[in-house]
Amino acid sequence: MLNHSADLDRLFHALGDPARRGMVERLSLGPAAVSELAAPLTMSLPAVLQHLGVLEAAGLVRSKKAGRVRTCAIEAAALGHAEQWINARRIEWEGRLDRLGDYLNTLKKEGDDDD
Amino acid sequence: MLNHSADLDRLFHALGDPARRGMVERLSLGPAAVSELAAPLTMSLPAVLQHLGVLEAAGLVRSKKAGRVRTCAIEAAALGHAEQWINARRIEWEGRLDRLGDYLNTLKKEGDDDD
Repeated sequence: MLNHSADLDRLFHALGDPARRGMVERLSLGPAAVSELAAPLTMSLPAVLQHLGVLEAAGLVRSKKAGRVRTCAIEAAALGHAEQWINARRIEWEGRLDRLGDYLNTLKKEGDDDD
Repeated sequence: MLNHSADLDRLFHALGDPARRGMVERLSLGPAAVSELAAPLTMSLPAVLQHLGVLEAAGLVRSKKAGRVRTCAIEAAALGHAEQWINARRIEWEGRLDRLGDYLNTLKKEGDDDD
Protein backbone atom coordinates (compact mmCIF):
# COMPACT_ATOMS: atom_id res chain seq x y z
CA MET A 1 0.00 0.00 0.00
CA LEU A 2 2.82 2.38 0.94
CA ASN A 3 4.69 1.51 -2.26
CA HIS A 4 1.54 1.93 -4.29
CA SER A 5 1.03 5.33 -2.66
CA ALA A 6 4.62 6.32 -3.51
CA ASP A 7 3.96 5.23 -7.12
CA LEU A 8 0.93 7.53 -7.27
CA ASP A 9 2.99 10.36 -5.72
CA ARG A 10 5.55 10.05 -8.52
CA LEU A 11 2.87 9.64 -11.21
CA PHE A 12 0.81 12.70 -10.30
CA HIS A 13 3.92 14.76 -9.56
CA ALA A 14 5.28 13.89 -13.02
CA LEU A 15 1.99 14.98 -14.65
CA GLY A 16 1.95 18.30 -12.74
CA ASP A 17 4.28 20.03 -15.21
CA PRO A 18 3.28 21.35 -18.66
CA ALA A 19 6.56 20.33 -20.36
CA ARG A 20 6.25 16.78 -19.05
CA ARG A 21 2.56 16.58 -20.01
CA GLY A 22 3.55 17.82 -23.46
CA MET A 23 6.01 14.94 -23.76
CA VAL A 24 3.36 12.42 -22.67
CA GLU A 25 0.91 13.95 -25.18
CA ARG A 26 3.48 13.57 -27.96
CA LEU A 27 4.43 10.01 -26.95
CA SER A 28 0.77 8.91 -26.78
CA LEU A 29 0.84 9.29 -30.57
CA GLY A 30 3.89 7.03 -30.92
CA PRO A 31 7.59 6.74 -29.99
CA ALA A 32 9.86 9.75 -30.56
CA ALA A 33 13.55 10.64 -30.35
CA VAL A 34 14.63 12.94 -27.49
CA SER A 35 15.46 15.64 -30.08
CA GLU A 36 11.86 15.52 -31.33
CA LEU A 37 10.49 15.83 -27.78
CA ALA A 38 12.83 18.77 -27.14
CA ALA A 39 11.96 20.63 -30.37
CA PRO A 40 8.76 22.41 -29.19
CA LEU A 41 10.28 23.28 -25.80
CA THR A 42 12.24 26.46 -25.09
CA MET A 43 14.70 24.86 -22.68
CA SER A 44 18.19 23.38 -22.66
CA LEU A 45 18.81 19.72 -23.51
CA PRO A 46 19.89 18.98 -19.89
CA ALA A 47 16.54 20.42 -18.71
CA VAL A 48 14.69 18.22 -21.21
CA LEU A 49 16.63 15.15 -20.01
CA GLN A 50 15.80 16.02 -16.40
CA HIS A 51 12.05 16.11 -17.24
CA LEU A 52 12.44 12.80 -19.08
CA GLY A 53 14.13 11.37 -15.98
CA VAL A 54 11.10 12.36 -13.87
CA LEU A 55 8.78 10.67 -16.39
CA GLU A 56 10.94 7.52 -16.45
CA ALA A 57 11.14 7.39 -12.63
CA ALA A 58 7.33 7.59 -12.54
CA GLY A 59 7.15 4.67 -14.99
CA LEU A 60 5.34 6.81 -17.57
CA VAL A 61 8.06 6.66 -20.22
CA ARG A 62 10.79 4.20 -21.16
CA SER A 63 13.73 5.05 -23.39
CA LYS A 64 16.33 3.10 -25.33
CA LYS A 65 19.53 4.24 -26.95
CA ALA A 66 20.46 2.95 -30.41
CA GLY A 67 23.73 4.44 -31.64
CA ARG A 68 23.53 8.17 -30.92
CA VAL A 69 19.73 8.37 -30.87
CA ARG A 70 17.70 7.84 -27.68
CA THR A 71 14.08 6.89 -28.51
CA CYS A 72 11.28 7.29 -25.96
CA ALA A 73 7.96 5.47 -25.71
CA ILE A 74 4.92 5.80 -23.45
CA GLU A 75 4.19 3.19 -20.77
CA ALA A 76 0.41 3.17 -20.96
CA ALA A 77 0.03 1.00 -17.83
CA ALA A 78 1.30 3.82 -15.58
CA LEU A 79 -1.28 6.26 -16.96
CA GLY A 80 -3.81 3.51 -16.27
CA HIS A 81 -2.89 3.52 -12.57
CA ALA A 82 -3.53 7.25 -12.29
CA GLU A 83 -6.80 6.83 -14.20
CA GLN A 84 -7.88 3.99 -11.88
CA TRP A 85 -7.32 6.08 -8.76
CA ILE A 86 -9.45 8.93 -10.16
CA ASN A 87 -12.10 6.45 -11.40
CA ALA A 88 -12.39 4.92 -7.93
CA ARG A 89 -13.12 8.38 -6.48
CA ARG A 90 -15.77 9.04 -9.14
CA ILE A 91 -17.47 5.69 -8.42
CA GLU A 92 -17.60 6.55 -4.69
CA TRP A 93 -18.85 10.05 -5.43
CA GLU A 94 -21.54 8.85 -7.86
CA GLY A 95 -22.55 6.07 -5.44
CA ARG A 96 -23.08 8.73 -2.80
CA LEU A 97 -25.24 10.79 -5.19
CA ASP A 98 -27.26 7.66 -6.09
CA ARG A 99 -27.92 6.91 -2.40
CA LEU A 100 -28.90 10.55 -1.84
CA GLY A 101 -31.27 10.32 -4.83
CA ASP A 102 -32.83 7.11 -3.46
CA TYR A 103 -33.32 8.78 -0.09
CA LEU A 104 -34.97 11.83 -1.65
CA ASN A 105 -37.25 9.55 -3.72
CA THR A 106 -38.24 7.68 -0.54
CA LEU A 107 -39.10 11.00 1.14
CA LYS A 108 -41.10 12.06 -1.93
CA LYS A 109 -42.97 8.72 -2.02
CA GLU A 110 -43.78 8.98 1.70
CA GLY A 111 -45.03 12.53 1.05
CA ASP A 112 -47.22 11.28 -1.85
CA ASP A 113 -48.59 8.43 0.29
CA ASP A 114 -49.58 10.95 2.96
CA ASP A 115 -51.71 12.90 0.42
CA MET B 1 -4.97 26.93 -23.29
CA LEU B 2 -2.33 28.40 -20.97
CA ASN B 3 -4.90 28.80 -18.19
CA HIS B 4 -6.18 25.30 -18.77
CA SER B 5 -2.60 24.02 -18.59
CA ALA B 6 -2.06 25.91 -15.30
CA ASP B 7 -5.27 24.30 -13.98
CA LEU B 8 -3.89 20.85 -14.81
CA ASP B 9 -0.56 21.78 -13.18
CA ARG B 10 -2.35 22.60 -9.93
CA LEU B 11 -4.64 19.57 -10.16
CA PHE B 12 -1.93 16.96 -10.69
CA HIS B 13 0.41 18.68 -8.22
CA ALA B 14 -2.36 18.58 -5.59
CA LEU B 15 -2.88 14.84 -6.20
CA GLY B 16 0.86 14.11 -5.93
CA ASP B 17 0.81 13.95 -2.13
CA PRO B 18 -0.49 11.02 -0.02
CA ALA B 19 -2.05 13.22 2.68
CA ARG B 20 -3.95 15.24 0.08
CA ARG B 21 -5.06 12.11 -1.79
CA GLY B 22 -6.26 10.73 1.56
CA MET B 23 -8.41 13.85 2.03
CA VAL B 24 -9.85 13.51 -1.48
CA GLU B 25 -10.53 9.79 -0.82
CA ARG B 26 -12.40 10.67 2.41
CA LEU B 27 -14.34 13.53 0.80
CA SER B 28 -15.41 11.35 -2.15
CA LEU B 29 -17.56 9.52 0.41
CA GLY B 30 -19.21 12.76 1.57
CA PRO B 31 -18.48 16.12 3.25
CA ALA B 32 -16.36 16.16 6.41
CA ALA B 33 -15.20 18.64 9.05
CA VAL B 34 -11.52 19.66 9.00
CA SER B 35 -11.05 17.87 12.35
CA GLU B 36 -12.28 14.62 10.76
CA LEU B 37 -9.88 15.03 7.82
CA ALA B 38 -7.03 15.71 10.24
CA ALA B 39 -7.80 12.71 12.52
CA PRO B 40 -5.96 9.97 10.50
CA LEU B 41 -2.97 12.24 9.77
CA THR B 42 0.08 12.53 12.01
CA MET B 43 0.64 16.23 11.37
CA SER B 44 -0.13 19.60 12.97
CA LEU B 45 -3.39 21.41 12.24
CA PRO B 46 -1.53 24.20 10.36
CA ALA B 47 0.01 21.52 8.11
CA VAL B 48 -3.45 20.02 7.50
CA LEU B 49 -4.82 23.48 6.64
CA GLN B 50 -1.92 24.05 4.25
CA HIS B 51 -2.73 20.81 2.40
CA LEU B 52 -6.40 21.82 2.30
CA GLY B 53 -5.33 25.17 0.84
CA VAL B 54 -3.51 23.37 -1.99
CA LEU B 55 -6.63 21.26 -2.69
CA GLU B 56 -8.86 24.36 -2.66
CA ALA B 57 -6.48 26.29 -4.96
CA ALA B 58 -6.63 23.34 -7.38
CA GLY B 59 -10.45 23.48 -7.28
CA LEU B 60 -10.66 19.93 -5.89
CA VAL B 61 -12.23 20.90 -2.56
CA ARG B 62 -14.44 23.69 -1.31
CA SER B 63 -14.95 24.53 2.35
CA LYS B 64 -17.44 26.57 4.36
CA LYS B 65 -17.31 27.73 7.96
CA ALA B 66 -20.44 27.51 10.11
CA GLY B 67 -19.79 28.74 13.63
CA ARG B 68 -16.52 27.15 14.75
CA VAL B 69 -16.68 24.20 12.34
CA ARG B 70 -15.23 24.30 8.82
CA THR B 71 -16.81 21.66 6.59
CA CYS B 72 -15.13 20.48 3.37
CA ALA B 73 -16.66 18.91 0.27
CA ILE B 74 -15.25 17.46 -2.95
CA GLU B 75 -15.56 19.33 -6.25
CA ALA B 76 -16.06 16.38 -8.59
CA ALA B 77 -15.72 18.53 -11.74
CA ALA B 78 -12.03 19.18 -11.06
CA LEU B 79 -11.29 15.45 -10.76
CA GLY B 80 -13.18 15.11 -14.05
CA HIS B 81 -10.70 17.47 -15.77
CA ALA B 82 -7.74 15.34 -14.67
CA GLU B 83 -9.61 12.21 -15.79
CA GLN B 84 -10.37 13.77 -19.21
CA TRP B 85 -6.72 14.59 -19.84
CA ILE B 86 -5.67 11.00 -19.06
CA ASN B 87 -8.59 9.61 -21.10
CA ALA B 88 -7.54 11.67 -24.12
CA ARG B 89 -4.06 10.13 -23.94
CA ARG B 90 -5.51 6.61 -23.69
CA ILE B 91 -7.73 7.21 -26.73
CA GLU B 92 -4.70 8.39 -28.76
CA TRP B 93 -2.64 5.44 -27.53
CA GLU B 94 -5.36 2.89 -28.29
CA GLY B 95 -6.02 4.50 -31.68
CA ARG B 96 -2.35 4.02 -32.47
CA LEU B 97 -2.52 0.34 -31.44
CA ASP B 98 -5.67 -0.12 -33.60
CA ARG B 99 -3.92 1.38 -36.64
CA LEU B 100 -0.90 -0.83 -35.97
CA GLY B 101 -3.23 -3.86 -35.72
CA ASP B 102 -4.94 -2.92 -39.02
CA TYR B 103 -1.54 -2.59 -40.69
CA LEU B 104 -0.39 -5.98 -39.38
CA ASN B 105 -3.67 -7.55 -40.57
CA THR B 106 -3.12 -6.02 -44.02
CA LEU B 107 0.38 -7.50 -44.16
CA LYS B 108 -0.99 -10.88 -43.02
CA LYS B 109 -3.76 -10.78 -45.65
CA GLU B 110 -1.27 -9.88 -48.40
CA GLY B 111 0.88 -12.78 -47.19
CA ASP B 112 -2.14 -15.15 -47.32
CA ASP B 113 -3.07 -13.92 -50.83
CA ASP B 114 0.47 -14.69 -51.98
CA ASP B 115 0.08 -18.34 -50.86
